[in-house]
Amino acid sequence: MEKWRRSERIPIITKLLLEKPNTLLSLNYFAELFQSAKSSISEDIAIIRDVFEQFGYGKIETLAGASGGVICIPRIQKQEKIKFLRELKDKLSEENRILPGGFLYMTDIIFDVMIAQKVGEIFAEYFVDSSPQYVVTMETKGIPLALMTAKALNLPLVIIRDGGRVTEGSAVSINYVTGSSRIIRTMSLSRRALPLGSKVIIIDDFMKAGGTAKGMIELLQEFKAEVLGIGILIDTEYPEKKLVNNYYSLLRLVEVDEQERKISIKSILD
Amino acid sequence: MEKWRRSERIPIITKLLLEKPNTLLSLNYFAELFQSAKSSISEDIAIIRDVFEQFGYGKIETLAGASGGVICIPRIQKQEKIKFLRELKDKLSEENRILPGGFLYMTDIIFDVMIAQKVGEIFAEYFVDSSPQYVVTMETKGIPLALMTAKALNLPLVIIRDGGRVTEGSAVSINYVTGSSRIIRTMSLSRRALPLGSKVIIIDDFMKAGGTAKGMIELLQEFKAEVLGIGILIDTEYPEKKLVNNYYSLLRLVEVDEQERKISIKSILD
Repeated sequence: MEKWRRSERIPIITKLLLEKPNTLLSLNYFAELFQSAKSSISEDIAIIRDVFEQFGYGKIETLAGASGGVICIPRIQKQEKIKFLRELKDKLSEENRILPGGFLYMTDIIFDVMIAQKVGEIFAEYFVDSSPQYVVTMETKGIPLALMTAKALNLPLVIIRDGGRVTEGSAVSINYVTGSSRIIRTMSLSRRALPLGSKVIIIDDFMKAGGTAKGMIELLQEFKAEVLGIGILIDTEYPEKKLVNNYYSLLRLVEVDEQERKISIKSILD
Repeated sequence: MEKWRRSERIPIITKLLLEKPNTLLSLNYFAELFQSAKSSISEDIAIIRDVFEQFGYGKIETLAGASGGVICIPRIQKQEKIKFLRELKDKLSEENRILPGGFLYMTDIIFDVMIAQKVGEIFAEYFVDSSPQYVVTMETKGIPLALMTAKALNLPLVIIRDGGRVTEGSAVSINYVTGSSRIIRTMSLSRRALPLGSKVIIIDDFMKAGGTAKGMIELLQEFKAEVLGIGILIDTEYPEKKLVNNYYSLLRLVEVDEQERKISIKSILD
Protein backbone atom coordinates (compact mmCIF):
# COMPACT_ATOMS: atom_id res chain seq x y z
CA MET A 1 0.00 0.00 0.00
CA GLU A 2 1.16 3.52 -0.74
CA LYS A 3 2.08 5.63 2.28
CA TRP A 4 0.38 8.72 0.88
CA ARG A 5 -2.87 8.84 -1.01
CA ARG A 6 -3.05 10.43 -4.46
CA SER A 7 -5.04 13.39 -3.15
CA GLU A 8 -2.27 13.97 -0.59
CA ARG A 9 0.61 13.65 -3.03
CA ILE A 10 -0.93 16.00 -5.58
CA PRO A 11 -0.82 19.24 -3.50
CA ILE A 12 2.85 18.60 -2.67
CA ILE A 13 3.82 17.79 -6.26
CA THR A 14 1.91 20.86 -7.46
CA LYS A 15 3.74 23.09 -4.97
CA LEU A 16 7.17 21.75 -5.88
CA LEU A 17 6.53 22.06 -9.64
CA LEU A 18 5.30 25.65 -9.30
CA GLU A 19 8.20 26.58 -7.04
CA LYS A 20 10.74 25.73 -9.73
CA PRO A 21 9.23 26.64 -13.07
CA ASN A 22 11.17 25.78 -16.23
CA THR A 23 13.36 23.38 -14.23
CA LEU A 24 13.63 19.62 -14.66
CA LEU A 25 12.68 17.72 -11.51
CA SER A 26 13.39 13.99 -11.43
CA LEU A 27 10.62 11.47 -10.91
CA ASN A 28 12.95 9.62 -8.53
CA TYR A 29 12.92 12.65 -6.26
CA PHE A 30 9.14 12.48 -5.94
CA ALA A 31 9.14 8.68 -5.67
CA GLU A 32 11.58 8.87 -2.75
CA LEU A 33 9.75 11.75 -1.12
CA PHE A 34 6.54 9.72 -0.99
CA GLN A 35 8.13 6.24 -0.84
CA SER A 36 5.96 5.52 -3.79
CA ALA A 37 6.22 3.78 -7.17
CA LYS A 38 7.33 5.95 -10.07
CA SER A 39 4.26 4.81 -11.98
CA SER A 40 1.98 6.30 -9.32
CA ILE A 41 3.89 9.60 -9.47
CA SER A 42 3.56 9.60 -13.27
CA GLU A 43 -0.19 9.22 -12.94
CA ASP A 44 -0.35 12.05 -10.38
CA ILE A 45 1.59 14.27 -12.75
CA ALA A 46 -0.67 13.35 -15.67
CA ILE A 47 -3.69 14.56 -13.69
CA ILE A 48 -1.98 17.85 -12.79
CA ARG A 49 -0.83 18.23 -16.40
CA ASP A 50 -4.32 17.74 -17.86
CA VAL A 51 -6.10 20.09 -15.48
CA PHE A 52 -3.38 22.76 -15.77
CA GLU A 53 -3.81 22.60 -19.52
CA GLN A 54 -7.59 22.89 -19.26
CA PHE A 55 -7.28 25.94 -17.02
CA GLY A 56 -4.58 27.39 -19.30
CA TYR A 57 -1.99 27.50 -16.51
CA GLY A 58 0.80 26.07 -18.58
CA LYS A 59 2.40 22.96 -19.91
CA ILE A 60 3.80 20.16 -17.81
CA GLU A 61 6.15 17.98 -19.79
CA THR A 62 7.44 14.59 -18.77
CA LEU A 63 10.74 13.33 -20.12
CA ALA A 64 11.16 9.57 -20.21
CA GLY A 65 14.35 7.62 -19.58
CA ALA A 66 16.89 7.21 -16.81
CA SER A 67 17.42 10.95 -16.55
CA GLY A 68 13.68 11.38 -16.90
CA GLY A 69 11.77 14.00 -15.07
CA VAL A 70 9.09 16.57 -15.19
CA ILE A 71 9.18 20.24 -16.06
CA CYS A 72 6.51 22.88 -15.55
CA ILE A 73 6.38 25.59 -18.20
CA PRO A 74 3.93 28.27 -17.04
CA ARG A 75 1.68 29.79 -19.65
CA ILE A 76 -0.73 32.67 -19.42
CA GLN A 77 -3.93 32.45 -21.40
CA LYS A 78 -4.25 34.99 -24.21
CA GLN A 79 -7.55 36.24 -22.75
CA GLU A 80 -5.94 36.76 -19.38
CA LYS A 81 -3.02 38.62 -20.95
CA ILE A 82 -5.37 40.91 -22.90
CA LYS A 83 -7.35 41.64 -19.74
CA PHE A 84 -4.22 42.23 -17.66
CA LEU A 85 -2.66 44.63 -20.17
CA ARG A 86 -5.96 46.46 -20.61
CA GLU A 87 -6.24 46.99 -16.84
CA LEU A 88 -2.62 48.10 -16.68
CA LYS A 89 -3.19 50.53 -19.53
CA ASP A 90 -6.23 51.98 -17.76
CA LYS A 91 -4.32 52.40 -14.51
CA LEU A 92 -1.41 54.11 -16.24
CA SER A 93 -3.80 56.46 -18.04
CA GLU A 94 -5.21 58.01 -14.85
CA GLU A 95 -4.69 61.73 -15.34
CA ASN A 96 -3.15 62.33 -11.91
CA ARG A 97 -0.13 60.33 -13.09
CA ILE A 98 1.14 63.20 -15.22
CA LEU A 99 4.34 64.62 -13.74
CA PRO A 100 6.00 67.90 -14.68
CA GLY A 101 7.75 67.54 -18.03
CA GLY A 102 5.20 65.09 -19.38
CA PHE A 103 6.58 62.15 -17.39
CA LEU A 104 4.33 59.45 -16.04
CA TYR A 105 4.24 58.34 -12.41
CA MET A 106 4.33 54.56 -12.57
CA THR A 107 6.46 53.53 -9.60
CA ASP A 108 3.50 52.22 -7.60
CA ILE A 109 2.61 49.95 -10.51
CA ILE A 110 6.03 48.48 -11.25
CA PHE A 111 6.64 47.98 -7.51
CA ASP A 112 3.27 46.21 -7.12
CA VAL A 113 4.29 42.60 -6.60
CA MET A 114 1.30 40.99 -8.31
CA ILE A 115 1.75 43.22 -11.38
CA ALA A 116 5.52 42.71 -11.46
CA GLN A 117 4.98 38.97 -11.21
CA LYS A 118 2.52 38.87 -14.08
CA VAL A 119 4.78 41.02 -16.28
CA GLY A 120 7.68 38.72 -15.39
CA GLU A 121 5.63 35.69 -16.40
CA ILE A 122 4.71 37.28 -19.73
CA PHE A 123 8.37 38.06 -20.48
CA ALA A 124 9.42 34.57 -19.34
CA GLU A 125 6.90 32.97 -21.66
CA TYR A 126 8.11 35.13 -24.55
CA PHE A 127 11.84 34.50 -24.04
CA VAL A 128 11.97 30.95 -22.65
CA ASP A 129 12.54 29.26 -26.02
CA SER A 130 15.71 31.27 -26.65
CA SER A 131 17.22 29.62 -23.52
CA PRO A 132 18.80 32.61 -21.76
CA GLN A 133 21.23 32.05 -18.87
CA TYR A 134 20.90 35.43 -17.13
CA VAL A 135 18.36 38.22 -16.81
CA VAL A 136 20.00 41.65 -16.91
CA THR A 137 18.57 45.01 -15.90
CA MET A 138 19.83 48.41 -14.81
CA GLU A 139 18.97 49.88 -11.46
CA THR A 140 16.49 50.89 -10.13
CA LYS A 141 13.00 50.73 -11.52
CA GLY A 142 13.56 47.75 -13.78
CA ILE A 143 14.60 45.51 -10.89
CA PRO A 144 11.20 44.20 -9.74
CA LEU A 145 10.19 43.26 -13.31
CA ALA A 146 13.59 41.70 -14.03
CA LEU A 147 13.58 39.78 -10.75
CA MET A 148 10.14 38.35 -11.43
CA THR A 149 11.21 37.40 -14.98
CA ALA A 150 14.27 35.70 -13.51
CA LYS A 151 12.06 33.90 -11.01
CA ALA A 152 9.71 32.64 -13.71
CA LEU A 153 12.68 31.40 -15.74
CA ASN A 154 14.58 30.18 -12.66
CA LEU A 155 17.64 32.21 -13.70
CA PRO A 156 20.02 34.50 -11.83
CA LEU A 157 19.57 38.25 -12.01
CA VAL A 158 22.34 40.69 -12.95
CA ILE A 159 21.93 44.35 -12.08
CA ILE A 160 23.95 47.01 -13.88
CA ARG A 161 24.75 49.90 -11.56
CA ASP A 162 23.88 53.48 -12.41
CA GLY A 163 27.05 55.54 -12.17
CA GLY A 164 30.59 54.43 -11.54
CA ARG A 165 30.39 53.89 -7.79
CA VAL A 166 30.63 50.13 -7.49
CA THR A 167 32.11 48.54 -4.39
CA GLU A 168 32.34 45.06 -5.79
CA GLY A 169 35.92 44.71 -6.91
CA SER A 170 37.01 45.34 -10.48
CA ALA A 171 34.21 46.59 -12.69
CA VAL A 172 33.65 47.63 -16.27
CA SER A 173 32.19 51.10 -16.77
CA ILE A 174 31.00 52.74 -19.94
CA ASN A 175 29.72 56.19 -20.75
CA TYR A 176 26.51 56.40 -22.67
CA VAL A 177 24.26 59.15 -23.93
CA THR A 178 20.64 59.05 -22.83
CA GLY A 179 18.71 58.99 -26.05
CA SER A 180 16.13 61.65 -25.29
CA SER A 181 17.82 64.19 -23.04
CA ARG A 182 21.31 63.74 -24.56
CA ILE A 183 23.07 63.67 -21.20
CA ILE A 184 26.27 61.70 -20.75
CA ARG A 185 26.02 59.16 -17.95
CA THR A 186 27.97 56.17 -16.67
CA MET A 187 26.90 52.61 -16.00
CA SER A 188 29.02 49.85 -14.48
CA LEU A 189 29.00 46.13 -13.91
CA SER A 190 31.27 44.17 -11.62
CA ARG A 191 33.56 41.77 -13.48
CA ARG A 192 32.41 38.86 -11.37
CA ALA A 193 28.69 39.54 -11.83
CA LEU A 194 28.53 37.89 -15.26
CA PRO A 195 30.74 35.13 -16.74
CA LEU A 196 32.21 35.90 -20.16
CA GLY A 197 30.16 34.68 -23.12
CA SER A 198 26.81 34.34 -21.33
CA LYS A 199 23.46 34.35 -23.10
CA VAL A 200 21.28 37.06 -21.60
CA ILE A 201 18.01 38.90 -21.95
CA ILE A 202 17.58 42.54 -20.92
CA ILE A 203 14.46 43.62 -19.01
CA ASP A 204 13.52 47.23 -18.25
CA ASP A 205 10.46 49.23 -17.35
CA PHE A 206 10.60 52.04 -19.88
CA MET A 207 12.15 52.97 -23.22
CA LYS A 208 12.00 56.31 -24.96
CA ALA A 209 14.86 56.71 -27.43
CA GLY A 210 16.64 53.56 -26.34
CA GLY A 211 19.87 55.17 -25.12
CA THR A 212 19.94 53.19 -21.90
CA ALA A 213 19.25 49.91 -23.67
CA LYS A 214 21.97 50.69 -26.21
CA GLY A 215 24.37 51.44 -23.34
CA MET A 216 23.50 48.13 -21.70
CA ILE A 217 24.19 46.26 -24.94
CA GLU A 218 27.56 47.98 -25.28
CA LEU A 219 28.47 47.21 -21.69
CA LEU A 220 27.42 43.59 -22.19
CA GLN A 221 29.69 43.39 -25.24
CA GLU A 222 32.59 43.96 -22.85
CA PHE A 223 31.50 40.70 -21.24
CA LYS A 224 31.19 39.03 -24.66
CA ALA A 225 27.55 38.39 -23.78
CA GLU A 226 25.01 37.41 -26.40
CA VAL A 227 21.87 39.52 -26.00
CA LEU A 228 19.00 37.26 -27.05
CA GLY A 229 16.29 39.86 -26.59
CA ILE A 230 15.02 42.92 -24.77
CA GLY A 231 11.73 43.11 -22.87
CA ILE A 232 10.26 46.51 -22.02
CA LEU A 233 7.06 47.16 -20.09
CA ILE A 234 6.24 50.43 -21.83
CA ASP A 235 7.88 52.27 -24.71
CA THR A 236 6.98 55.53 -26.41
CA GLU A 237 5.59 56.09 -29.88
CA TYR A 238 8.04 58.96 -30.43
CA PRO A 239 10.86 59.03 -31.37
CA GLU A 240 9.75 56.38 -33.84
CA LYS A 241 13.31 55.35 -34.56
CA LYS A 242 14.93 53.88 -31.46
CA LEU A 243 18.63 53.35 -30.88
CA VAL A 244 18.03 49.59 -30.57
CA ASN A 245 16.04 47.23 -32.76
CA ASN A 246 14.19 44.08 -31.94
CA TYR A 247 12.77 44.66 -28.54
CA TYR A 248 9.47 43.39 -27.17
CA SER A 249 7.27 45.91 -25.36
CA LEU A 250 3.88 45.29 -23.81
CA LEU A 251 2.49 48.82 -23.79
CA ARG A 252 3.11 51.91 -25.89
CA LEU A 253 2.82 55.48 -24.63
CA VAL A 254 1.31 57.42 -27.52
CA GLU A 255 0.93 60.83 -25.94
CA VAL A 256 0.98 62.73 -22.67
CA ASP A 257 -0.93 65.98 -23.10
CA GLU A 258 0.00 68.16 -20.12
CA GLN A 259 -2.46 70.88 -21.17
CA GLU A 260 -5.49 68.66 -21.58
CA ARG A 261 -4.30 66.27 -18.80
CA LYS A 262 -4.77 63.32 -21.14
CA ILE A 263 -2.63 60.19 -21.38
CA SER A 264 -2.93 57.87 -24.36
CA ILE A 265 -1.55 54.33 -24.14
CA LYS A 266 -1.90 51.31 -26.42
CA SER A 267 -1.51 47.63 -25.54
CA ILE A 268 0.24 45.31 -27.99
CA LEU A 269 -2.73 42.97 -27.71
CA ASP A 270 -5.47 45.49 -28.48
CA MET B 1 -22.30 14.82 -10.24
CA GLU B 2 -19.38 17.16 -9.79
CA LYS B 3 -17.94 18.56 -12.99
CA TRP B 4 -14.37 18.17 -11.75
CA ARG B 5 -12.98 15.31 -9.72
CA ARG B 6 -11.27 15.95 -6.38
CA SER B 7 -7.84 15.09 -7.80
CA GLU B 8 -8.45 17.68 -10.54
CA ARG B 9 -9.66 20.42 -8.21
CA ILE B 10 -6.79 20.02 -5.77
CA PRO B 11 -3.92 21.13 -8.10
CA ILE B 12 -5.88 24.25 -9.05
CA ILE B 13 -6.79 25.14 -5.46
CA THR B 14 -3.19 24.54 -4.39
CA LYS B 15 -1.92 26.86 -7.13
CA LEU B 16 -4.35 29.65 -6.28
CA LEU B 17 -3.63 29.43 -2.54
CA LEU B 18 0.13 29.54 -3.08
CA GLU B 19 -0.15 32.41 -5.54
CA LYS B 20 -1.73 34.67 -2.95
CA PRO B 21 -0.18 33.83 0.41
CA ASN B 22 -1.53 35.56 3.52
CA THR B 23 -4.65 36.58 1.59
CA LEU B 24 -8.23 35.53 2.28
CA LEU B 25 -9.81 33.74 -0.68
CA SER B 26 -13.53 33.06 -0.52
CA LEU B 27 -14.92 29.53 -0.72
CA ASN B 28 -17.59 30.86 -3.07
CA TYR B 29 -14.88 31.77 -5.55
CA PHE B 30 -13.68 28.16 -5.67
CA ALA B 31 -17.24 26.80 -5.66
CA GLU B 32 -18.08 28.92 -8.71
CA LEU B 33 -14.82 28.13 -10.44
CA PHE B 34 -15.56 24.40 -10.27
CA GLN B 35 -19.37 24.63 -10.25
CA SER B 36 -19.11 22.56 -7.16
CA ALA B 37 -20.66 22.44 -3.66
CA LYS B 38 -18.90 24.46 -0.99
CA SER B 39 -18.75 21.33 1.16
CA SER B 40 -16.67 19.56 -1.49
CA ILE B 41 -14.31 22.51 -1.67
CA SER B 42 -13.99 22.48 2.12
CA GLU B 43 -13.00 18.82 2.00
CA ASP B 44 -10.42 19.51 -0.73
CA ILE B 45 -8.94 22.27 1.37
CA ALA B 46 -8.84 20.05 4.46
CA ILE B 47 -6.73 17.53 2.55
CA ILE B 48 -4.33 20.22 1.33
CA ARG B 49 -4.20 21.68 4.85
CA ASP B 50 -3.33 18.36 6.49
CA VAL B 51 -0.64 17.38 4.04
CA PHE B 52 0.90 20.90 4.01
CA GLU B 53 1.09 20.69 7.78
CA GLN B 54 2.71 17.26 7.68
CA PHE B 55 5.32 18.49 5.21
CA GLY B 56 5.81 21.67 7.24
CA TYR B 57 4.84 23.93 4.34
CA GLY B 58 2.60 26.17 6.35
CA LYS B 59 -0.81 26.64 7.83
CA ILE B 60 -4.02 26.78 5.87
CA GLU B 61 -6.80 28.34 7.90
CA THR B 62 -10.49 28.27 7.06
CA LEU B 63 -12.79 30.99 8.31
CA ALA B 64 -16.43 30.03 8.64
CA GLY B 65 -19.46 32.24 8.02
CA ALA B 66 -20.90 34.24 5.15
CA SER B 67 -17.62 36.06 4.57
CA GLY B 68 -15.83 32.76 5.10
CA GLY B 69 -12.78 31.82 3.19
CA VAL B 70 -9.39 30.25 3.27
CA ILE B 71 -5.97 31.71 3.85
CA CYS B 72 -2.58 30.13 3.29
CA ILE B 73 0.13 31.17 5.76
CA PRO B 74 3.43 29.76 4.51
CA ARG B 75 5.78 28.38 7.13
CA ILE B 76 9.31 27.14 6.80
CA GLN B 77 10.34 24.21 8.94
CA LYS B 78 12.95 25.00 11.56
CA GLN B 79 15.22 22.26 10.17
CA GLU B 80 14.96 23.71 6.70
CA LYS B 81 15.74 27.20 7.99
CA ILE B 82 18.79 25.95 9.88
CA LYS B 83 20.02 24.13 6.78
CA PHE B 84 19.35 27.10 4.51
CA LEU B 85 21.17 29.59 6.75
CA ARG B 86 24.08 27.18 7.20
CA GLU B 87 24.47 26.83 3.43
CA LEU B 88 24.21 30.60 3.02
CA LYS B 89 26.84 31.12 5.71
CA ASP B 90 29.18 28.66 3.98
CA LYS B 91 28.71 30.36 0.62
CA LEU B 92 29.36 33.80 2.09
CA SER B 93 32.48 32.52 3.82
CA GLU B 94 34.27 31.52 0.59
CA GLU B 95 37.57 33.37 0.79
CA ASN B 96 37.43 34.79 -2.75
CA ARG B 97 34.54 36.97 -1.57
CA ILE B 98 36.89 39.31 0.27
CA LEU B 99 36.98 42.69 -1.45
CA PRO B 100 39.51 45.48 -0.83
CA GLY B 101 38.71 47.21 2.46
CA GLY B 102 37.42 44.05 4.10
CA PHE B 103 34.10 44.17 2.27
CA LEU B 104 32.30 41.03 1.24
CA TYR B 105 31.11 40.31 -2.30
CA MET B 106 27.56 39.07 -1.86
CA THR B 107 25.70 40.49 -4.84
CA ASP B 108 25.43 37.14 -6.59
CA ILE B 109 23.77 35.71 -3.49
CA ILE B 110 21.22 38.44 -2.81
CA PHE B 111 20.35 38.56 -6.52
CA ASP B 112 19.89 34.77 -6.63
CA VAL B 113 16.14 34.41 -6.94
CA MET B 114 15.79 31.16 -4.97
CA ILE B 115 17.85 32.59 -2.11
CA ALA B 116 16.04 35.95 -2.16
CA GLN B 117 12.73 34.11 -2.12
CA LYS B 118 13.65 31.96 0.87
CA VAL B 119 14.96 34.98 2.79
CA GLY B 120 11.75 36.82 1.94
CA GLU B 121 9.70 33.92 3.25
CA ILE B 122 11.67 33.85 6.50
CA PHE B 123 11.14 37.60 7.02
CA ALA B 124 7.46 37.27 6.08
CA GLU B 125 6.97 34.52 8.63
CA TYR B 126 8.70 36.61 11.30
CA PHE B 127 6.77 39.84 10.65
CA VAL B 128 3.33 38.61 9.51
CA ASP B 129 1.71 38.78 12.95
CA SER B 130 2.47 42.50 13.29
CA SER B 131 0.25 43.10 10.19
CA PRO B 132 2.38 45.50 8.15
CA GLN B 133 0.87 47.36 5.20
CA TYR B 134 4.06 48.13 3.24
CA VAL B 135 7.54 46.71 2.86
CA VAL B 136 10.18 49.46 2.63
CA THR B 137 13.77 49.24 1.46
CA MET B 138 16.43 51.52 0.05
CA GLU B 139 17.96 50.98 -3.35
CA THR B 140 19.72 48.96 -4.62
CA LYS B 141 20.88 45.75 -3.03
CA GLY B 142 18.00 45.38 -0.60
CA ILE B 143 15.41 45.37 -3.38
CA PRO B 144 15.31 41.64 -4.26
CA LEU B 145 14.99 40.61 -0.60
CA ALA B 146 12.35 43.28 0.07
CA LEU B 147 10.39 42.37 -3.05
CA MET B 148 10.32 38.71 -2.10
CA THR B 149 9.24 39.62 1.44
CA ALA B 150 6.48 41.78 -0.04
CA LYS B 151 5.47 38.91 -2.30
CA ALA B 152 5.27 36.46 0.60
CA LEU B 153 3.15 38.94 2.57
CA ASN B 154 1.19 40.05 -0.51
CA LEU B 155 2.05 43.70 0.22
CA PRO B 156 3.23 46.60 -1.92
CA LEU B 157 6.90 47.52 -1.99
CA VAL B 158 8.24 51.03 -1.37
CA ILE B 159 11.77 51.87 -2.47
CA ILE B 160 13.62 54.82 -0.97
CA ARG B 161 15.91 56.41 -3.54
CA ASP B 162 19.60 56.91 -2.89
CA GLY B 163 20.39 60.58 -3.44
CA GLY B 164 18.07 63.46 -4.16
CA ARG B 165 17.47 62.80 -7.84
CA VAL B 166 13.84 61.70 -7.91
CA THR B 167 11.68 62.31 -10.95
CA GLU B 168 8.40 61.41 -9.31
CA GLY B 169 6.87 64.72 -8.35
CA SER B 170 7.25 66.18 -4.88
CA ALA B 171 9.50 64.17 -2.63
CA VAL B 172 10.87 64.26 0.89
CA SER B 173 14.65 64.15 1.20
CA ILE B 174 16.77 63.83 4.29
CA ASN B 175 20.48 63.90 4.91
CA TYR B 176 21.93 61.12 6.97
CA VAL B 177 25.36 60.08 8.12
CA THR B 178 26.49 56.60 7.20
CA GLY B 179 27.29 55.00 10.52
CA SER B 180 30.64 53.48 9.72
CA SER B 181 32.30 55.77 7.20
CA ARG B 182 30.73 58.99 8.55
CA ILE B 183 29.86 60.36 5.13
CA ILE B 184 26.86 62.63 4.68
CA ARG B 185 24.44 61.31 2.08
CA THR B 186 20.89 61.99 0.93
CA MET B 187 17.91 59.67 0.58
CA SER B 188 14.50 60.59 -0.83
CA LEU B 189 11.01 59.24 -1.14
CA SER B 190 8.26 60.50 -3.39
CA ARG B 191 5.30 61.92 -1.45
CA ARG B 192 2.89 59.69 -3.31
CA ALA B 193 4.86 56.49 -2.72
CA LEU B 194 3.54 56.00 0.83
CA PRO B 195 0.27 57.19 2.38
CA LEU B 196 0.61 59.07 5.68
CA GLY B 197 0.35 56.93 8.82
CA SER B 198 1.14 53.57 7.22
CA LYS B 199 2.44 50.55 9.14
CA VAL B 200 5.67 49.37 7.57
CA ILE B 201 8.55 46.97 7.93
CA ILE B 202 12.06 47.78 6.66
CA ILE B 203 14.08 45.13 4.84
CA ASP B 204 17.74 45.48 3.89
CA ASP B 205 20.65 43.26 2.99
CA PHE B 206 23.36 44.55 5.31
CA MET B 207 23.84 46.55 8.48
CA LYS B 208 27.10 47.71 9.98
CA ALA B 209 26.60 50.69 12.28
CA GLY B 210 22.95 51.16 11.31
CA GLY B 211 23.25 54.67 9.84
CA THR B 212 21.22 53.82 6.77
CA ALA B 213 18.49 52.14 8.81
CA LYS B 214 18.38 55.14 11.14
CA GLY B 215 18.08 57.43 8.12
CA MET B 216 15.21 55.35 6.75
CA ILE B 217 13.39 55.55 10.08
CA GLU B 218 13.81 59.34 10.14
CA LEU B 219 12.59 59.66 6.58
CA LEU B 220 9.60 57.44 7.38
CA GLN B 221 8.77 59.70 10.32
CA GLU B 222 8.14 62.44 7.76
CA PHE B 223 5.40 60.17 6.45
CA LYS B 224 4.12 59.52 9.99
CA ALA B 225 4.77 55.84 9.35
CA GLU B 226 4.90 53.30 12.13
CA VAL B 227 7.96 51.09 11.73
CA LEU B 228 6.94 47.69 13.07
CA GLY B 229 10.28 46.05 12.57
CA ILE B 230 13.51 45.80 10.61
CA GLY B 231 14.76 42.67 8.87
CA ILE B 232 18.43 42.43 7.85
CA LEU B 233 20.08 39.54 6.04
CA ILE B 234 23.51 40.04 7.58
CA ASP B 235 24.78 42.42 10.24
CA THR B 236 28.24 42.85 11.72
CA GLU B 237 29.44 41.97 15.20
CA TYR B 238 31.28 45.34 15.41
CA PRO B 239 30.39 48.03 16.22
CA GLU B 240 28.44 46.25 18.92
CA LYS B 241 26.25 49.26 19.54
CA LYS B 242 24.13 50.04 16.48
CA LEU B 243 22.29 53.26 15.76
CA VAL B 244 18.99 51.37 15.76
CA ASN B 245 17.61 48.84 18.20
CA ASN B 246 15.29 45.95 17.69
CA TYR B 247 16.15 44.59 14.34
CA TYR B 248 16.06 40.98 13.22
CA SER B 249 19.10 39.66 11.36
CA LEU B 250 19.64 36.18 10.02
CA LEU B 251 23.42 36.11 9.81
CA ARG B 252 26.21 37.93 11.65
CA LEU B 253 29.57 38.81 10.12
CA VAL B 254 32.07 38.30 12.93
CA GLU B 255 35.31 39.01 11.12
CA VAL B 256 36.89 39.50 7.72
CA ASP B 257 40.62 38.91 7.99
CA GLU B 258 42.16 40.35 4.83
CA GLN B 259 45.63 39.08 5.78
CA GLU B 260 44.65 35.51 6.49
CA ARG B 261 41.87 35.57 3.88
CA LYS B 262 39.40 34.25 6.42
CA ILE B 263 35.73 35.15 6.81
CA SER B 264 33.84 34.26 9.95
CA ILE B 265 30.02 34.29 9.93
CA LYS B 266 27.45 33.06 12.45
CA SER B 267 23.83 32.08 11.83
CA ILE B 268 21.18 33.09 14.37
CA LEU B 269 20.04 29.47 14.39
CA ASP B 270 23.40 27.84 15.11
